[in-house]
Amino acid sequence: MKQTANLPGEFELIARYFAPLARGFPGAFGLLDDVAVIAPLPGHELVAKTDAIVGGVHFLHDDPPDLIARKALRVNLSDLAAKGAVPRAYMLDIMLPKTVTEAWIAAFARGLADDQNEYGVHLIGGDTDSTPGPVTVAIMAFGDVATGRMLRRGGARAGDTVFVTGTIGDAALGLTVLRGQLANLDTNAADFLVGRYRLPRPRVRLSPRLIGIANAALDVSDGLLADLGHLCEASELAAVIEAPRVPLSTAVRAVLATHSGHITTVLTGGDDYEILFTAPPEAVNELAELSRTLDVPITPIGRMRSPSIGKQPQITVLGESGKPLIFDRSGWTHF
Amino acid sequence: MKQTANLPGEFELIARYFAPLARGFPGAFGLLDDVAVIAPLPGHELVAKTDAIVGGVHFLHDDPPDLIARKALRVNLSDLAAKGAVPRAYMLDIMLPKTVTEAWIAAFARGLADDQNEYGVHLIGGDTDSTPGPVTVAIMAFGDVATGRMLRRGGARAGDTVFVTGTIGDAALGLTVLRGQLANLDTNAADFLVGRYRLPRPRVRLSPRLIGIANAALDVSDGLLADLGHLCEASELAAVIEAPRVPLSTAVRAVLATHSGHITTVLTGGDDYEILFTAPPEAVNELAELSRTLDVPITPIGRMRSPSIGKQPQITVLGESGKPLIFDRSGWTHF
Repeated sequence: MKQTANLPGEFELIARYFAPLARGFPGAFGLLDDVAVIAPLPGHELVAKTDAIVGGVHFLHDDPPDLIARKALRVNLSDLAAKGAVPRAYMLDIMLPKTVTEAWIAAFARGLADDQNEYGVHLIGGDTDSTPGPVTVAIMAFGDVATGRMLRRGGARAGDTVFVTGTIGDAALGLTVLRGQLANLDTNAADFLVGRYRLPRPRVRLSPRLIGIANAALDVSDGLLADLGHLCEASELAAVIEAPRVPLSTAVRAVLATHSGHITTVLTGGDDYEILFTAPPEAVNELAELSRTLDVPITPIGRMRSPSIGKQPQITVLGESGKPLIFDRSGWTHF
Repeated sequence: MKQTANLPGEFELIARYFAPLARGFPGAFGLLDDVAVIAPLPGHELVAKTDAIVGGVHFLHDDPPDLIARKALRVNLSDLAAKGAVPRAYMLDIMLPKTVTEAWIAAFARGLADDQNEYGVHLIGGDTDSTPGPVTVAIMAFGDVATGRMLRRGGARAGDTVFVTGTIGDAALGLTVLRGQLANLDTNAADFLVGRYRLPRPRVRLSPRLIGIANAALDVSDGLLADLGHLCEASELAAVIEAPRVPLSTAVRAVLATHSGHITTVLTGGDDYEILFTAPPEAVNELAELSRTLDVPITPIGRMRSPSIGKQPQITVLGESGKPLIFDRSGWTHF
């Protein structure tokens, strides 16, 4: 509870910047009690997720504070979304070094306020602390899902089609741009990729609509192939992916046109926060309709199959020619 | 998700040390999915609390890892307890510097396992990250409370008796010992006080029994007078405390016998994690019975009263003579 020297006290900070974010959620008690009270909507249970981000590890120290706040929140909302849950509330632990100013905190809180409007969630509790280390933000998010209907990693069936939303590889190439390793890219493409890295867009509107259609789902945070690996492992199945069908943005296509080796970055890089899911092949029309209604691209990229006898669940990636691609360990460590 | 260099990978760490802590809670999915599912018990709602602790701020870098784990968990359980909730589950975000060894993590997890047995709670989710800063542990705890019955800060009534559990001031004087500022104290007393600072004992068995008796409650984490101040403010009341009635351990009495000025430390120091609550005076017999049954000391120390007209809610502390004590700002900043 100790506070940094150049800031107002903890209670004042909470009253000024965080309590306004708790308005509209009675169980948050205006952040004036010690705890929050939350119950799932009737017929629902709560889905809970926590993820923390650390300065110098998950974001850069001079990243804009509103973007840090929104990224911290959105990586959690993305997990709720991928499970078919509708996000409703979150708690926030924020650890601040002495160098942080009140203006920084004000901007951080504005970022949260913007995303609360965008996603319909409320802050319901939290903790502010000082730290001798970097800014550290831990979020715990809550959503509602119909009882027993949560989309699991482990529900895929052999023969299911593998689908992914949006485009893949943008965030990983955005990080590559930030590292100065894609210097010749045109500014618009570079900005687009960096934006995708800095600010995930969790697919919250789509997610509840996938219940009853998808057999298994998770968000693409570790990378397309790694996350498909998690899904295969949990479902005890193998998968075949056709690389040419993986949906790519114009910016990623531009990168690949001159740096074809970055296909590895695209397929194995993380932070896209799209939804990867499997559904029976006959769901394709219903999904196409959903894609149009919600204006969310949904692309079939492969299929689930039984693993070879005696082998670990395995992912095969087919290239343009229909022949399997081989990834080296640095790119794709599950092989 | 990036992991420190001298440790197994994140998934291996989770499988080895944290997944075993999730056994016995179906909605944790063995920590193999992205989220947890939790619903309150029938007729109940969930009480949620998060509190983080930071190396060099809330604990010392060379504190035993099992104690760090248990303190991180217990400060959260204490808040649930003070609200009448029965703790059931928690999530854990842990940020680790590169200097942390696998043995450290094993001991940390053992501390959690011990407390899971002691308090009947389960790990249901979390996140492990590397940090260039100190060890940082964020816990979010969940408990069940009968719907609408949570003990609030703001329910006290004028005329209520103010009660506190256990003894007050032990932890603050324990920290004083650790700082080398109580050198002449005998070893047993010093060990007792340090133990009280290092390892809170949340009053989880008592808490649900206070529902229907107490009008307002919170745990003593900021200090007796500060926390009573929070209760007064939320209840829009004033309070009178009789200092000689504040329950003190033998060790604290020994300190005060030679360092009477430490009465300020006792009344304003934090980290006791006892429960401070108010109840009508006629509840005293029922509380005495509860105290005997549960073997938890419960002591009346004062009463709530209407604030003077036009004044802020105020706390008066009466000394031996019945005259008000005055605390300087360093000890008691709410005046």
